[in-house]
Amino acid sequence: MFEARLAQAQVLKKLLEAVKELIQEANFEVQAEGMSLQAMDGSHVSLVSLHLRSDGFEHFRCDRPFSMGMNLNNMDKMMKCAGKEDTLTMRAEDDGDTVAFLFEAGNQARVSEFELKLMDITSENLGIPDNEYAATVRMPSGEFQRIVKDLATIGDTVEIVVSKEGIKFSANGDIGSANVLCRHSTGGKEEEQMVIDMVEPVSLTFSLRYLTSFTKATPLAPSVTIMLSRELPVVVEYKVADLGWVRYYLAPKIEEDEDMDA
Amino acid sequence: MFEARLAQAQVLKKLLEAVKELIQEANFEVQAEGMSLQAMDGSHVSLVSLHLRSDGFEHFRCDRPFSMGMNLNNMDKMMKCAGKEDTLTMRAEDDGDTVAFLFEAGNQARVSEFELKLMDITSENLGIPDNEYAATVRMPSGEFQRIVKDLATIGDTVEIVVSKEGIKFSANGDIGSANVLCRHSTGGKEEEQMVIDMVEPVSLTFSLRYLTSFTKATPLAPSVTIMLSRELPVVVEYKVADLGWVRYYLAPKIEEDEDMDA
Amino acid sequence: MFEARLAQAQVLKKLLEAVKELIQEANFEVQAEGMSLQAMDGSHVSLVSLHLRSDGFEHFRCDRPFSMGMNLNNMDKMMKCAGKEDTLTMRAEDDGDTVAFLFEAGNQARVSEFELKLMDITSENLGIPDNEYAATVRMPSGEFQRIVKDLATIGDTVEIVVSKEGIKFSANGDIGSANVLCRHSTGGKEEEQMVIDMVEPVSLTFSLRYLTSFTKATPLAPSVTIMLSRELPVVVEYKVADLGWVRYYLAPKIEEDEDMDA
Repeated sequence: MFEARLAQAQVLKKLLEAVKELIQEANFEVQAEGMSLQAMDGSHVSLVSLHLRSDGFEHFRCDRPFSMGMNLNNMDKMMKCAGKEDTLTMRAEDDGDTVAFLFEAGNQARVSEFELKLMDITSENLGIPDNEYAATVRMPSGEFQRIVKDLATIGDTVEIVVSKEGIKFSANGDIGSANVLCRHSTGGKEEEQMVIDMVEPVSLTFSLRYLTSFTKATPLAPSVTIMLSRELPVVVEYKVADLGWVRYYLAPKIEEDEDMDA
Repeated sequence: MFEARLAQAQVLKKLLEAVKELIQEANFEVQAEGMSLQAMDGSHVSLVSLHLRSDGFEHFRCDRPFSMGMNLNNMDKMMKCAGKEDTLTMRAEDDGDTVAFLFEAGNQARVSEFELKLMDITSENLGIPDNEYAATVRMPSGEFQRIVKDLATIGDTVEIVVSKEGIKFSANGDIGSANVLCRHSTGGKEEEQMVIDMVEPVSLTFSLRYLTSFTKATPLAPSVTIMLSRELPVVVEYKVADLGWVRYYLAPKIEEDEDMDA
Repeated sequence: MFEARLAQAQVLKKLLEAVKELIQEANFEVQAEGMSLQAMDGSHVSLVSLHLRSDGFEHFRCDRPFSMGMNLNNMDKMMKCAGKEDTLTMRAEDDGDTVAFLFEAGNQARVSEFELKLMDITSENLGIPDNEYAATVRMPSGEFQRIVKDLATIGDTVEIVVSKEGIKFSANGDIGSANVLCRHSTGGKEEEQMVIDMVEPVSLTFSLRYLTSFTKATPLAPSVTIMLSRELPVVVEYKVADLGWVRYYLAPKIEEDEDMDA
């Protein structure tokens, strides 16, 4: 049997909104350590990985490892029914074909139970190696979302350059060009800081369409961490307070790609 | 001559928004006792009835009973022009073919007058018998709206069961199922209470599409009262403070209906 | 070289939103006195004129008069990237084919530079004679916007009548008619005043479609000034605090026009 209780149903709702644009169906893997999901987007270009630690839940019981295949749009319909202050309890039998979501208001006057049909999804668990990165940038998640959105109005790809000057985002298009430079700045609150940790300068180009999808995770965390290295996929990580993280991976564009896009 | 003055034009605007999804054209009947409207929706499945007492108006004069046929969408276009704080005066000559809506701001710096063309609408006034109901439930109108909206994402019909446990709303669909249980709870403010008055348990099934239309009346009142009996149409009533009410009637689905829908 | 700096990038953004519905491409003329634009809308019915004085800028340098042809939709895409508190610096070389917009946040942690391609636009500078007007009305810009919007739900044209009674806006349509009367009222804050300065009564009819476009300037100024004379285009003026103004001109409809529209 699997049973897990979150003090805030909204956290799972936001996690779902952060991934459902990229992934339509996925297996949630549950085991004693927690709950995780890993999947490539429909066009096999980007990878989403999320992990929620069992100790971040109010209550977590998983008798044996278990895979729950869900249609994320259907799951989202149910998660949208969670009230702002509701707690969430997930529950599934070991051999059942449904998972139940229980939303409870603080005063217990209302109890809503949704049962979602599970589905069989074949998935390959991709090993993601632990890499060292040439540059790691932590910045306000809203700022990153803003920059990606702005540049997407100018062009299709963004060149990200990390140098001593800071991190620079550039795009070109028919109507002109755009450059946004963010400088290292560690004053103020932690979530307003722009912390650039550079081993060596790096310059990479990415599709703005995928980065735009990644920024759907913005409501989950005040900061985002971007890890860059030549010839490695960029990692865009949002930490979920006291619970875990969601990470997105996207391979850089190489010049041939750009020509093909043109 | 008919002339009636409401301190808040917004009340009539909200009433109109509460009924215009179901009814496109209707006769407003005015007489010394007040103003009323009764009509079936376009597909003759549900019935809307509203009544505004003359003593709830700042001023009400009706020389003789009078029927004003209006296109509710056109009336709504004019009501949308009422300012938030405007008063409303309605005025019609006994044999005229228009009704005038006067909106006045508190400071009288602006006076807007809209004249709507009346139309001939044949209508049958349906006698609605006063019934005793097996169960009467008063609950926060926003909560009822929420439940109806949530269940409509899961299925087409809702089973409403009133028992000692409380009132339970259930829906089934392709993606799974949903159950929302609200327990009797009389603490707190009156408008937050869930008051279940049950003579005998009752279990009935209704179309969620029509209930969804009924909940357009939510802005009119903090509470909604739901009256249920076996083989009788459900009554969903919203009281308009100091003025009157709007009531919706919908026959329960019987099993044959459900099969036909499937 | 041309370089000009505005403390609030949002002002230029709002100006653009105020004109881009009417004008798709236009020349911004820069010279020592300031920056101006004048253009007829696509159907050559209305005229837009805007002027920003050089002394309203934090910094303004223009070595020689210069015309910058811009696609306003593309310019708007870039202006939308300005943060709420950003300053704006515009910069162009005398013989360059681009103009740069620099947005800087107060803390200078982020600098965004957008380069827009300039284009050659043939434009005729129309002399606008200084006229005396029979009636000049200053009213809250939000009130004017509201009236125009309300009347546009009833009819296609508005008759504006200025008399001793006040200023009256009237429209007719299939569903009925509307009259809005605003009386001279000079109490309260300056921006809430309705100041009617009438030399002689005037009654003119205008297309509501164009007036609706003019009210896109509402966010620029709390008041709007409307200048009316028989057989002259109406002038609708919004002042931009400490910087300049935007003015719209629209010829009145004559009876033949109305017949043709009917």
